Amino acid sequence: MFPYKTSLILNRKSKEPLYLQLSNQFINLIKEGKLTSGTKLIGSRSLAELLNIHRKTVVSCYEELSLQGWVESISKKGTFVHNNLPLLDQSKLIEAQSKNEKNKSGFTFYANEIFPHKVSVKKENTIYINDGTSDGRLIPTEEIARTYRRIASKKNIYKEMGYGSTFGNDKLRLTLVEYLNTTRGLQITKDNILITRGSQMGIWLSSQLLLKSKDVIVVGETNYASADYNFLDQKATLKRVAVDENGLVIDQIEELCKKQQIKAVYVTSHHHHPTTVTLSAERRIHLLNLAKEYNFAIIEDDYDYDFNYNHAPILPLASHDNNGNVIYIGSICKTVAPVFRIGYLIASKEFVNEAAKLRGFVDRQGDALLELTFADFIKSGDLDRHIRKVMKIYKQRRDLFCQLLKDKLSNYFEFKIPKGGMAVWVKLNKKYSWKQVEIEARKHQLEIGEWQRYDLANTKHNAIRIGFASYNEEEIHKLISALKITMIAITN
Amino acid sequence: MFPYKTSLILNRKSKEPLYLQLSNQFINLIKEGKLTSGTKLIGSRSLAELLNIHRKTVVSCYEELSLQGWVESISKKGTFVHNNLPLLDQSKLIEAQSKNEKNKSGFTFYANEIFPHKVSVKKENTIYINDGTSDGRLIPTEEIARTYRRIASKKNIYKEMGYGSTFGNDKLRLTLVEYLNTTRGLQITKDNILITRGSQMGIWLSSQLLLKSKDVIVVGETNYASADYNFLDQKATLKRVAVDENGLVIDQIEELCKKQQIKAVYVTSHHHHPTTVTLSAERRIHLLNLAKEYNFAIIEDDYDYDFNYNHAPILPLASHDNNGNVIYIGSICKTVAPVFRIGYLIASKEFVNEAAKLRGFVDRQGDALLELTFADFIKSGDLDRHIRKVMKIYKQRRDLFCQLLKDKLSNYFEFKIPKGGMAVWVKLNKKYSWKQVEIEARKHQLEIGEWQRYDLANTKHNAIRIGFASYNEEEIHKLISALKITMIAITN
Repeated sequence: MFPYKTSLILNRKSKEPLYLQLSNQFINLIKEGKLTSGTKLIGSRSLAELLNIHRKTVVSCYEELSLQGWVESISKKGTFVHNNLPLLDQSKLIEAQSKNEKNKSGFTFYANEIFPHKVSVKKENTIYINDGTSDGRLIPTEEIARTYRRIASKKNIYKEMGYGSTFGNDKLRLTLVEYLNTTRGLQITKDNILITRGSQMGIWLSSQLLLKSKDVIVVGETNYASADYNFLDQKATLKRVAVDENGLVIDQIEELCKKQQIKAVYVTSHHHHPTTVTLSAERRIHLLNLAKEYNFAIIEDDYDYDFNYNHAPILPLASHDNNGNVIYIGSICKTVAPVFRIGYLIASKEFVNEAAKLRGFVDRQGDALLELTFADFIKSGDLDRHIRKVMKIYKQRRDLFCQLLKDKLSNYFEFKIPKGGMAVWVKLNKKYSWKQVEIEARKHQLEIGEWQRYDLANTKHNAIRIGFASYNEEEIHKLISALKITMIAITN
Repeated sequence: MFPYKTSLILNRKSKEPLYLQLSNQFINLIKEGKLTSGTKLIGSRSLAELLNIHRKTVVSCYEELSLQGWVESISKKGTFVHNNLPLLDQSKLIEAQSKNEKNKSGFTFYANEIFPHKVSVKKENTIYINDGTSDGRLIPTEEIARTYRRIASKKNIYKEMGYGSTFGNDKLRLTLVEYLNTTRGLQITKDNILITRGSQMGIWLSSQLLLKSKDVIVVGETNYASADYNFLDQKATLKRVAVDENGLVIDQIEELCKKQQIKAVYVTSHHHHPTTVTLSAERRIHLLNLAKEYNFAIIEDDYDYDFNYNHAPILPLASHDNNGNVIYIGSICKTVAPVFRIGYLIASKEFVNEAAKLRGFVDRQGDALLELTFADFIKSGDLDRHIRKVMKIYKQRRDLFCQLLKDKLSNYFEFKIPKGGMAVWVKLNKKYSWKQVEIEARKHQLEIGEWQRYDLANTKHNAIRIGFASYNEEEIHKLISALKITMIAITN
């Protein structure tokens, strides 16, 4: 007889009901050919005794197996493994792949060669340089969670809980329309706004809709790397123009336009990423006029609109756009916390409609509860209060960071104090390389981060962004000290 | 003198500071050429008197304009509009497009021709037929929101609030590994799971990685339309095989394999979408063996695993996969509520790595707070309790719906009672068309929904899915009555 007692092992502590544990083990025995087609199974009474379980459990198990088509019960004869069941092929297991280490696929697929893969495991007591992120400790998390819960407790909330609009929740769209029209000089209606999961999705959607193989997109000589990757992944041709202290050199774009059709210009007009400079008034108008004349799109990524220390935020290009040329991208993640994945894409109605369609096929829809929470957060003035609060703190951090960088490290680094944003563009003296700094810094609990991403065009500017906003006073001192020790070690 | 008083209009009730209102209006006047390059602006004292505001407001405004590069202050001479500013081109405005109706783009883009666009505006007092969604009124929203708030209030939660892993939150990944290994017979580790925004994203990612132009993917003769659209959008070749009472006819897949390389098979093995049939045990093994022999991927979309009324859930193909052929896709949205956008993609480590990379470039990362909330919801057993609770209710609804359909409408419709899921596959007598039914039903406050999506291959089966789970007893009676009135009206 088949060794039922040793082949079937029950775990009485498991949450899985016994009859199901039993069924699943029977299924494995059948699949693997240990119980072959036509075999008569042991009677339920005998199996119950053997395993010391209730007979009903065995009956349920056999019923289950029968319903699933693994066995057949013939009245007065017994229960038989179904005839004609094929065996699961156990041969040719992928080399060195045990059941518990599923590393390789049994099929081929297209790996992406453009997107770099980042897997970061953070070590304790190490300072990580970032490209300008907010400080998680300053997030009004509890306040937001309280609002979330209040909204989730509303009587009719279930109406918002089903499949919703791919455009995002209507209340948030209307709230943002009013907020952006008032604060950023836009003149939009609900039809012009799509709620996204953050700026990244806005860039991705624009890239998908604007670019096919060999289409030309203009970017800065140094540019936000994630945007570059998106455009390259579409197999677009990137034309790079210089960036000076007034931002993208628009005259160079005009020259390009005269020679060939360009589809789009990607611009971080408020604070150029990565160099932090602001696009001048004259160039703004020049760029808008060119877009109109040559019918190209301007992807305006206003990634840190809210943070300006010397003046009020500058109105975006989108506020001057009277011809439907600007796709305006922004997010709340950057302002509040990356964990809250809410952003927006603003453009003509026809473009927003297409973007919503595409977005629906990637992830169906956004998170209505979170969207409603942020509609409330904006409407109540809490967002503005939060911005005012952190802006003061970030300004102090910028001033401290820049002061220390100047006082302690001016032999090695050059920089200008940024008027806004959360990062400084720091040039390393050409005598040294960031590769050297990275290796040495690691010995002093300082991680430089992906410095390579700032120079995809290989212009050898030898600069990287160093975010200051996420560190408190003590951490800024520590960062500067570690950098100082690093540079001294390299120099000697 | 320039008519400052009538050109500058201040709103003292606005949240926008007066000096900014003023600056933005000046900027518009300059852009539009109403204040031309070189013009000397009115003195701050005079303007303050004219507008009845504090002089400091005007000074701030002029400072702002100067910082932004619109004007130049020359000491002892005054403030002048900057020289050499170009004018914003106001000519050739897109036809019939006022400032407040931004419909058209000033550039061309690639509209998607595959994805249909759904914009649904729901009317009151109307029953909408869906393809099998859960009932929003049964969601444990308050419980989930309470957990969310509790997690958001944890002392070190800020560590989870920054930029996180594109694979999803580690705690949820580990929780799901344990949960799925126990309940679905999987044998996976954390490396095999990517948290997604729901099944839709899982299908999208798989489609992107597996298919390029002309690659062959096998689907059912009738199939889940959103999956079809995704594959078609990749320009893949769809080969359709028959679906009978035991699911996809795998023999037909074997025939295809002998003739050409196929890249993947998309299968809803548990309850075929749309017909609700279960893939038989024999065919499961057959399909797995073919995948191994011919090196293709099986995309197993287990969209309503949790809902079985006559037997325990059937173990997915993924539980028998010893060769890395199966990409297993599931979601919590379907089980709990569409609003909670959490799903998973399970596959070999190398495939999961690529999927995570791609996902990062679309929307960067998931929502860590929500992911932690669901890790808790699963671990505490709340998810299982929720499933047990609603399963009883859905079973009653299925029984009532099917009974009424049989008793009142058997002249018009044929169907089999589904063993699981949330929908019935309802065949309309060939004498009638769903188009007719749709038009007539609308008169009786019944919306049939997108019936066309069930027959993209044009096989003329004349059937659609009717979900039963989202309606309470009263609504089921109303739905059946409306359908009955509709059919009588058509017949007469």
